[in-house]
Amino acid sequence: MSSARKTAAIVGGGVIGGGWAARFLLNGWNVNVFDPDPDAERKLSEVIANARRALPGLYDRALPEEGALTFYGDMAKAVAGVDWVQESVPEQLALKHKVLGALSDLAPETAVIGSSTSGFKPSELNAAGARAIVAHPFNPVYLLPLVELVGLPERIGPATEILRSVGMFPLVLRKEIDAHIADRLLEAVWRESLWLVKDGVATTEEIDEAIRMAFGIRWAQMGLFETYRIAGGEAGMKHFMAQFGPALSWPWTKLMDVPEFTPELVDLIAGQSDAQSGHMSIRQLERLRDDNIVGMLRALKRSGSGAGGVVTGHEAALGQTNIGQTGTKDGLPVTARRQVPACWTDYNGHMNETHYLEAASLATDRLMEMVGAGADYISAGRSYFTVESHIRYLEEVRAGERITVTTQVLQGTGKKMHLFHRLWRGDDVLAATIEVLLLHTDLSTRRSSLPAQPVAEALAELAGKHAQIESTGAGRFVGERPPGG
Amino acid sequence: MSSARKTAAIVGGGVIGGGWAARFLLNGWNVNVFDPDPDAERKLSEVIANARRALPGLYDRALPEEGALTFYGDMAKAVAGVDWVQESVPEQLALKHKVLGALSDLAPETAVIGSSTSGFKPSELNAAGARAIVAHPFNPVYLLPLVELVGLPERIGPATEILRSVGMFPLVLRKEIDAHIADRLLEAVWRESLWLVKDGVATTEEIDEAIRMAFGIRWAQMGLFETYRIAGGEAGMKHFMAQFGPALSWPWTKLMDVPEFTPELVDLIAGQSDAQSGHMSIRQLERLRDDNIVGMLRALKRSGSGAGGVVTGHEAALGQTNIGQTGTKDGLPVTARRQVPACWTDYNGHMNETHYLEAASLATDRLMEMVGAGADYISAGRSYFTVESHIRYLEEVRAGERITVTTQVLQGTGKKMHLFHRLWRGDDVLAATIEVLLLHTDLSTRRSSLPAQPVAEALAELAGKHAQIESTGAGRFVGERPPGG
Repeated sequence: MSSARKTAAIVGGGVIGGGWAARFLLNGWNVNVFDPDPDAERKLSEVIANARRALPGLYDRALPEEGALTFYGDMAKAVAGVDWVQESVPEQLALKHKVLGALSDLAPETAVIGSSTSGFKPSELNAAGARAIVAHPFNPVYLLPLVELVGLPERIGPATEILRSVGMFPLVLRKEIDAHIADRLLEAVWRESLWLVKDGVATTEEIDEAIRMAFGIRWAQMGLFETYRIAGGEAGMKHFMAQFGPALSWPWTKLMDVPEFTPELVDLIAGQSDAQSGHMSIRQLERLRDDNIVGMLRALKRSGSGAGGVVTGHEAALGQTNIGQTGTKDGLPVTARRQVPACWTDYNGHMNETHYLEAASLATDRLMEMVGAGADYISAGRSYFTVESHIRYLEEVRAGERITVTTQVLQGTGKKMHLFHRLWRGDDVLAATIEVLLLHTDLSTRRSSLPAQPVAEALAELAGKHAQIESTGAGRFVGERPPGG
Repeated sequence: MSSARKTAAIVGGGVIGGGWAARFLLNGWNVNVFDPDPDAERKLSEVIANARRALPGLYDRALPEEGALTFYGDMAKAVAGVDWVQESVPEQLALKHKVLGALSDLAPETAVIGSSTSGFKPSELNAAGARAIVAHPFNPVYLLPLVELVGLPERIGPATEILRSVGMFPLVLRKEIDAHIADRLLEAVWRESLWLVKDGVATTEEIDEAIRMAFGIRWAQMGLFETYRIAGGEAGMKHFMAQFGPALSWPWTKLMDVPEFTPELVDLIAGQSDAQSGHMSIRQLERLRDDNIVGMLRALKRSGSGAGGVVTGHEAALGQTNIGQTGTKDGLPVTARRQVPACWTDYNGHMNETHYLEAASLATDRLMEMVGAGADYISAGRSYFTVESHIRYLEEVRAGERITVTTQVLQGTGKKMHLFHRLWRGDDVLAATIEVLLLHTDLSTRRSSLPAQPVAEALAELAGKHAQIESTGAGRFVGERPPGG
């Protein structure tokens, strides 16, 4: 498959460039990096290390095999034959002109040339003849899906498709505008916050609490307008606007003025920020942030709201191109292959017992798909319900480790589906066995029933194939000594 | 205990007043409501119904028994003898003066009188002689912890304590200021967003996506400043400010102007909002929002960040005043009593198999606490690791239903702790049994070891007490037929 890999060139490897590199790399792209900074390789490796421990935890399926990461000292070589070029150099228009101009000459005509600019418009970026689009991402780029796209429609189209394929959410702007959309909103909050600190109304920590204890939580799953629509109650958006419209002309903001960035203000804010967060290193803060984001996005996957829906959609696409029907191990189908997210671990510093069962439960779902009892079958009113399970915990598993699950069909006749999952740490350390008995169920009556003929046949076929394979550990009761043990 | 219950008076029972009522009620307070609106009782009941399905799902312990909800047609009777009065009438200063003045005369001298005002300062609210403080909450009040407190220190102190006891996060302002802190930030975003819509740059839906796909997720767990501190990378906050300070004077916002609220702008926004969210009723949107918030806050409980930390702290307090050591059922300790959150259910419309085990795992933690192997014991380097479990799923359980878990100690000698959990739907439908074998483990060597003497003794004592109780369903293997079955 490696001949089909696509390649991205990352020009400028700071926090944003590194985030782009990680996003592409962990989605199976080869990544070429060009950055004259002698420290670039170290910095970028740290971003990628963060991404490796966080991004796979979003998904209940394995990401593609990582691509190859190569550093180039020559920009022309870095962009030769690539599919995407991402420029993330500092926010100086003259520098952007120089770099984007060179990239437009050197990169293949078919390659998208994206600029990570926070504020410049395509007309400004391309004033010296470049052919870039704005592709503005958000830190951490490997976790947050938003990319604001601005530019010519014929260039935006292919970019959109590529971004979706690496799990991102392209938002195409209708018009070019300074700072696009999100940064205009951020800028407004930033200004108002600077005034609050400067005027001694609140510290940086108090402002952060005001955000994360209230509207930050609302905005992670719905935005401003949908939240206000709800606040309007049954009377809806017009009612809300009638109620809160007048406040617009009240003196609720100081936004008409721009606070001057004096050394005193910088010291005040930096000092307050140290008092608030100085007990943790930036690396620790990044990991805390990433674990929080992964945990929240996993929660949003349930409803499909916002970024949770993006993750679910990407995961479904992974299922089609990835392991599943085809992968086997020891003669058994591989029904899960994934990384353990930090939120699956507990106070003992290892994967909590609950999530061994969760991994097995997802493997059962996968086996159901394989025998034709997937989402469509369930929507049509039939499913399998678990009636009994038995778990043997054999080895500890830690956050970030990869696990593989194989599934043996012990019995698949009548209403019964009797499965024996083996959960491997990596590929070859048996960490648990999970034996499960399920009964086919009619979802309207909630009573057991016979499965559809094709499902019964597929299951019987697997049971036949698996009958010769040993199943040590199945059929045991809790506390039973192993034979000879 | 009901003589020790505190009472809150809710004056004005709309979305905000109803949210306050629900917050107090579900935390065991009696609630008196005064609202002349003939429709108030219906509206408030709907908010409380939402709260009943969402708030308990935040916690892995039961909330206190609900208090009594009473509607009064007479303000004096509603506030007689209460501990807290919360005013949530419309945002008109003359009306606030009238209501707060009356409340200050009628309510006990010891009662806190809080105003939910979004914008007015205490000096304005009390200009006609009232003694109110600002206690400004955020919708949904029963889920979001933030309350901005502004007023005299001697009134703020007791208010702070009460708010913490009902799971909220009081943020005390250093100075009074129009619109306090959070609404100043919201107002800035609201103004900028109105311009973006008015100028045709983005629709309401696009703006919501720009928020919830990116910075909304960041802000739910850290705020603005901590996020920017990280963005500065290793060089920290000063570096960030040096990098993005200059942009403050660039034309990134239109905030110097206030958009005029013409009928055309109202229609444009209301129409876009209908296109975005009109396929769902307000009630559906509220429930989606609440389920999302509960799921995300449960994820944040893992790290204790932001509102997750507030929930964890409140839960610990619930453990001390609530069930646990004392509660028993059928001669066995009650080790869990809780409501099933929506995020525990799956595509089959019932609690997923994984969460039966999660409930049992939390019950095991509770039993460990009871025998002296709680958080302190684990911090000191010893714990119990599960080596085997067996689950029988007997009945379906749905979101919002209450479950109770009892724990029988089958064996507690040497390194072994052999438990038999019964999971009841409500109090009397046996929905599952979970049999678990754990081994005492030294956390530094990760090898099994003997427990501390007091733990061994407490466990042996429980095992002795429980030996006479039957344990039908224990010692079974998967698929074994029940005796005589």
